[in-house]
Amino acid sequence: MLNGLAAERPATGDSHRRNLAALLRRVHLGGPVSRVRLAEELGVNRSTVLALTGELAAAGLVREGSAPATGRTGRPSLLVRPASDAVHVLAFDIAVDRLVAARVGLGGVVSGRLEATRPRAGADLDFVVSVLADLGRALQHGAPPGSVCVGVGASYCGMIRPGDGLVRYGPDLGWVDQAFGAELARRLDLGLPVLVGNEAHLGAVAEHQRGAGVGVRNLVYLHGDVGVGGGIIVGGDLLGGDGGYGSEVGHMLVNPYQGRPCLCGSHGCLEAEVGERALLDAAGRPADSIGREAVRAVVADAARGDLAAQEALRRVGDWLGIGVANVINLFNPGVVIFGGTLREVFQGSAPHVRRRIRANVLPVSRDKVELRVSAFGDDTTLIGAAELGFAPLLADPLGNRTAVAS
Amino acid sequence: MLNGLAAERPATGDSHRRNLAALLRRVHLGGPVSRVRLAEELGVNRSTVLALTGELAAAGLVREGSAPATGRTGRPSLLVRPASDAVHVLAFDIAVDRLVAARVGLGGVVSGRLEATRPRAGADLDFVVSVLADLGRALQHGAPPGSVCVGVGASYCGMIRPGDGLVRYGPDLGWVDQAFGAELARRLDLGLPVLVGNEAHLGAVAEHQRGAGVGVRNLVYLHGDVGVGGGIIVGGDLLGGDGGYGSEVGHMLVNPYQGRPCLCGSHGCLEAEVGERALLDAAGRPADSIGREAVRAVVADAARGDLAAQEALRRVGDWLGIGVANVINLFNPGVVIFGGTLREVFQGSAPHVRRRIRANVLPVSRDKVELRVSAFGDDTTLIGAAELGFAPLLADPLGNRTAVAS
Repeated sequence: MLNGLAAERPATGDSHRRNLAALLRRVHLGGPVSRVRLAEELGVNRSTVLALTGELAAAGLVREGSAPATGRTGRPSLLVRPASDAVHVLAFDIAVDRLVAARVGLGGVVSGRLEATRPRAGADLDFVVSVLADLGRALQHGAPPGSVCVGVGASYCGMIRPGDGLVRYGPDLGWVDQAFGAELARRLDLGLPVLVGNEAHLGAVAEHQRGAGVGVRNLVYLHGDVGVGGGIIVGGDLLGGDGGYGSEVGHMLVNPYQGRPCLCGSHGCLEAEVGERALLDAAGRPADSIGREAVRAVVADAARGDLAAQEALRRVGDWLGIGVANVINLFNPGVVIFGGTLREVFQGSAPHVRRRIRANVLPVSRDKVELRVSAFGDDTTLIGAAELGFAPLLADPLGNRTAVAS
Repeated sequence: MLNGLAAERPATGDSHRRNLAALLRRVHLGGPVSRVRLAEELGVNRSTVLALTGELAAAGLVREGSAPATGRTGRPSLLVRPASDAVHVLAFDIAVDRLVAARVGLGGVVSGRLEATRPRAGADLDFVVSVLADLGRALQHGAPPGSVCVGVGASYCGMIRPGDGLVRYGPDLGWVDQAFGAELARRLDLGLPVLVGNEAHLGAVAEHQRGAGVGVRNLVYLHGDVGVGGGIIVGGDLLGGDGGYGSEVGHMLVNPYQGRPCLCGSHGCLEAEVGERALLDAAGRPADSIGREAVRAVVADAARGDLAAQEALRRVGDWLGIGVANVINLFNPGVVIFGGTLREVFQGSAPHVRRRIRANVLPVSRDKVELRVSAFGDDTTLIGAAELGFAPLLADPLGNRTAVAS
C-alpha cells in the first residue's frame, strides 16, 4: 500500500518491531513526550520504553532532552523528541498551476520549501521531473549537515497506480500511463523510490494525521483545484478500493441531463458543476481568468457585495451541497473537510451547502457531522506527500536500513 | 459491531481463542474439510488442529466423520463438519411486503422457513413483533430434538442503530425510534438478544460471505424493494461510518432539479428514479399495482416485446447506471451485486446500465469491475440476518457459553 496510512499496519513482524514503529510514529505525529506517557499510550512497561527509546536514539531517529521548566519543583522530566534536523524526507506537490518541493524533517517540520510555477498546459513528463529534480537537489544541498533523506513522496493531481507511481490518468496535464515516480527517482538519484499518491488521497491522509481530522475515524476530504478530488478515510484507513482508484468524488454524476461538460468527457460530474471554471463562468469572469487566485477573487468580491459573485457562489454552493450530502449519506462520516480552493469556496457558500445538507441528508447521518476547512492551506497535499515519504520508515524504523547516525 | 463481519476481528483474546474462532468460521462458511487442510488454511500444525477440533466437538459445535468414498485407495479422510442439526439461529426478515422467519443450522443450512404477508402500511411494532414471535416459536418447536438456538438475527428495511437494534428510521412502515430488537427479544423469551441490521447491509454481508461476492475485498450490494438500499464492503469490512448508517446509496441525489419525489421528503434521490414506483409509473401500470411481482411482471413483459415496459426499463436502467457509475467511481470495487427486485430490473436493463458505466466511470476503475446478481434470490437479506445471529458464536465459540451438547 503506497499510502501514508500503511504505517499503521505493519504487515508482519514481532511485537518489538511494532512497538518501535508505534513509538516513532507517536513522536513523529504527536511531538515531544515523556517516557512515562509513552509507556501509558503504548501499553508497555517503562523498562520497555527505555529500551525502545535507546534503540531509536542509537539509530539517530529520536533524542532525549529536558522539558522546558514549568515552575514546578522536582526533577525535570525527560522528553523524547523526533530528530527533526537529522532525518528528513523530500516532498513534491505536482498541482495544476505550480510545482512545489519541500524538505520535511521527522516530526513534520518543513525546513525548506521551493516553488515553481508551471505552464497550465503542455507540461510533459520530462519538463516536470527536470524541474522537480532541480528543486529536490537544491533542498538536499540546503539540508542541515549530516541530515539523512529517508524517503521521497509526491502528490499528483491525477490517478496513480499504487506500487510504482505510474500516472494512469492525469487529465490536467494530459498524461496517460506516464512512469512519473520511476523517472523522478532516476533523476533525483538518491537511491530511494519516489512514492506517489493522488493529491486528494494525500490531503485526506494529511488532515487525518495532523490536521482538521485528527482522531476522526471516518472523514471525507474534498480538494478543489481545476476540478474536485476526494480522499475518504473509512474506519481509519484511506479508501482505495481494488486498484487504489477509489474516493473519486469529482466524477460523481449529479446533473446528468443538463450538466456542464467535464474534462473526463462526460457532462454533469460534480467537478463540472463546482470546479474552477463553473464558478468563474457563473460569476461572469472572462474565459482567460483561471487559477486559485481568480477563484479566491470571486469569493472576496462576493463578501464585498458583488451580486454576480454572490449568485455564482449560491449556484456552486448548491451543487457542492449536493455532492457533500451524497457523501455524508454514503459514508456517515464524523467530519467533512474542504481543502484547496474549496476551502474558500465553502467559506463563501456555507449557507447554501448547509441548506442542501438539511434537505438531503437523512437525519441519522446528519446529526453529528461537522464541516471543517483544511488546516494547512495550500500545503495540505504537500504535507500528505511528506507523510507518504515517511511511511516506510515509520512502518519499520530499523528494518533494512543502516543507522541514520553513528 | 452488530454486523456479520464482526467475527473476523475478535476484539481481544489469545491466539487459542482466535484459532477456535477461525476453525469454526471456516467450517461454518466453507463446509466439511479435512484436518490436514484446516492446518494449512489456519497456518497451524496438525496437533493444534486436533486439539481445536476436539474442543469444538466436545462443545457440540463440530463433528468428524469420513468423507464419501472417492474411489481412491487408502484410508478415507476424516472431515470436520458443522453440527448443523445441533446448533441453529433464528433469522427474521422484515421486508416491505412480508415477514419471514427461518431456522438456520450452523453451516448455513436453512432447516425451516415460514413466511407471512403483512399489510403494506400501518403495521405497527406490536403487530410485527407478535407475528415474528409466533413464527419464531413455531420454528423452535420444529427444531431437531436437542438443537440449541445460539443467536437471533433480524434484517429490517430501514436504518438501525447498532448496539441495541433500535429502528431509527423505517420510512416504509413509518417507524421512527422504535425499540424493535429489544421488543422482539422480550417476546421470543429465548434469553438471547436480537441483533438487528439494515437489510441491504446484511445482504452485502450474505453475498460477501456465501454468495456472489465470496473472496471479493471491495464490493457494492444494491438491494431493491420499494426503494433502493446499499451495503458496501470496503477492504473486507462493511462500511458503517461513525454511527452505522453509511452505505446509504438510495438517497444519493442524481436528479436534484427535475427529480421524482422520494419517500425521504426530497426529490431526485436514486431510489426515487429507480425504485418500484418509478418503474411501474414509467411502464404505465395502474397506481394500485405494487410489489415485487408487479416489478417482475414489467421485466417479463419487456422480454415479451411490450414497448411500454421496454421504455420503462430503458429509463430506469439509465438512472440505475448513473447510480452504479457513481459508486464504482467512489469505491473502485471488484464486484457490484444486484439483489432484491434490482436483480430482475438489472437483468432487464443491463445494456442501459452498462452504457452509463462506459460513459461515466473513469477507465482505471471500469477496467476490472464485474456486475453480478444476488446468489440467494429473495432470501439474501434473510441469510444475512442468520449470519448476524451466528456472529457472536463465531467470534468466540466457547466464550461465556455452556456447552451446546454434553
